[in-house]
Amino acid sequence: MGVEERRQQLIGVALDLFSRRSPDEVSIDEIASAAGISRPLVYHYFPGKLSLYEAALKRASEDLAGRFAEPHEGPLGTRLLRVMRRFFDFVDEHGPGFSALMRGGPAVGSSATNALIDSVRQAAYEQMLAHLGVTEASARLELVVRSWISLAESTALIWLDGRRVPRAELELQLVHDFAALAAVSAAHDEDMALLLRTMVKDEPADGPFAELVGRLLSLAP
Amino acid sequence: MGVEERRQQLIGVALDLFSRRSPDEVSIDEIASAAGISRPLVYHYFPGKLSLYEAALKRASEDLAGRFAEPHEGPLGTRLLRVMRRFFDFVDEHGPGFSALMRGGPAVGSSATNALIDSVRQAAYEQMLAHLGVTEASARLELVVRSWISLAESTALIWLDGRRVPRAELELQLVHDFAALAAVSAAHDEDMALLLRTMVKDEPADGPFAELVGRLLSLAP
Repeated sequence: MGVEERRQQLIGVALDLFSRRSPDEVSIDEIASAAGISRPLVYHYFPGKLSLYEAALKRASEDLAGRFAEPHEGPLGTRLLRVMRRFFDFVDEHGPGFSALMRGGPAVGSSATNALIDSVRQAAYEQMLAHLGVTEASARLELVVRSWISLAESTALIWLDGRRVPRAELELQLVHDFAALAAVSAAHDEDMALLLRTMVKDEPADGPFAELVGRLLSLAP
Repeated sequence: MGVEERRQQLIGVALDLFSRRSPDEVSIDEIASAAGISRPLVYHYFPGKLSLYEAALKRASEDLAGRFAEPHEGPLGTRLLRVMRRFFDFVDEHGPGFSALMRGGPAVGSSATNALIDSVRQAAYEQMLAHLGVTEASARLELVVRSWISLAESTALIWLDGRRVPRAELELQLVHDFAALAAVSAAHDEDMALLLRTMVKDEPADGPFAELVGRLLSLAP
C-alpha cells in the first residue's frame, strides 16, 4: 500500500474501534492488530494515539457535517426529519465514541478536537439557515438555531445512555422541538413571528409540523 | 490568618479573577497580588493553578447548584422564572469563566472538573423533578428535563457571546421553552400528557405558562 492509502486504512480501522468502545479503552496495539500491521508501523504513520484519534475524528466530523446537507425541496418539516434520521444513524453507528467525545474524551480541550466539534456545529447551523432561506440571521434566530443544535446533541447523548426511548420517536420529536422553540421565540419577537409564518405556510396537512399542531390541540382539555 | 481562612480568601480572590477573564489568562502572580500575599505563599496553600482553579470551581458549583433550590410554593411557571433569574445572575457574574469552562477551559477533561459540572446538572435535574412532584422519572421525562437543562446552558453561552438579546427575555423564554419541550413530549406520550395537565392546572391566568399560550394563540393567522 502507498503511504496515503495506508493512512486512510488506519484511520478507517481506528474510527471503527473508537466508535464501538470509549476511545480511552482502545490501544495502539489493538489498532495495529485490526489493521494487520505491526505496532511500530502504526507509529510510522501516526506519531501517537492522539494524532490517530484526531484524524479519525476529522473523518467522522466531515461525515456528520455532510448529513445536515439536504436538498432545498419540499416542506421544511419533512426535510428536517430526514436530517434528524441521518443524524441518529450517525449517533447509532458511533455511539460510544460520540458519548466519550461529547462528555470529555481523550482529546477534549485539545484545540484540534474543539475546532472539529465547532466545525460540525457551524455546518449544521449554516445548513439550517439555508433551509430557512435566511442569509443574515438575527440574534434571536441564531439563538433558536444554535440552541436547537445543542438540544439535538444532548438528546442524542441521553438516548445513547440506555436507549430507553425509540429513536424514531426522538427524531420526530426533535423536529417538533425546533418548531416549538421557534414558536416560543416568535411569541417574543415580531421578526421571528414573520419567519415562523413563512416556515409553516408550505407545510402539508400530513407533515410533521401539522402533526405537532394536531397533537397539541388534542391535548387541550 | 489561619490556614483555612487564608485558603478561603485565596479561593474567593481566584474565583473573582477566573470569573472576570478567561482562566487561561489569569496567572498565579496576579492572584497573589490581588490577595496581597507573595507568590510562594500561594503555592504553600495550593500546589498549582489547577488545584486553585478546581477549588474556585467547586465553590462556584455549590453556589450555582443552590440557585436551583426554590420553595415548592405557588405556580410552577413563576418558580421556574425565579430560578432562571438566579441562573442568569450567576452567568452574568461569572461570564468569562463560565464560557471558558463550558467551551473547554484549562481543566476540562480533568475528572474533578467534569464531576463538578455533572454535580450541578444533577442538582438542577433533581430540583426540577421535585418541583414537578415526581420521585421516579420516566425515560421521557428525564429526557425533557435533562435536555432542557442543556438548553439553558447553551442559551446562556450564546447570550454571553455579545449579549445581543436582553437577558430578561431569555429568562422568560427558557421557562416557555420548558413548557414547549414538555408539550412536545406530551404530544408523543400519554404519561407526559398527564404530567403536563398537572403542571398547568394550577397556573394563574397571569403566570408565564398562560402568557405563552396567549402569545402563541395571537400568532395564529
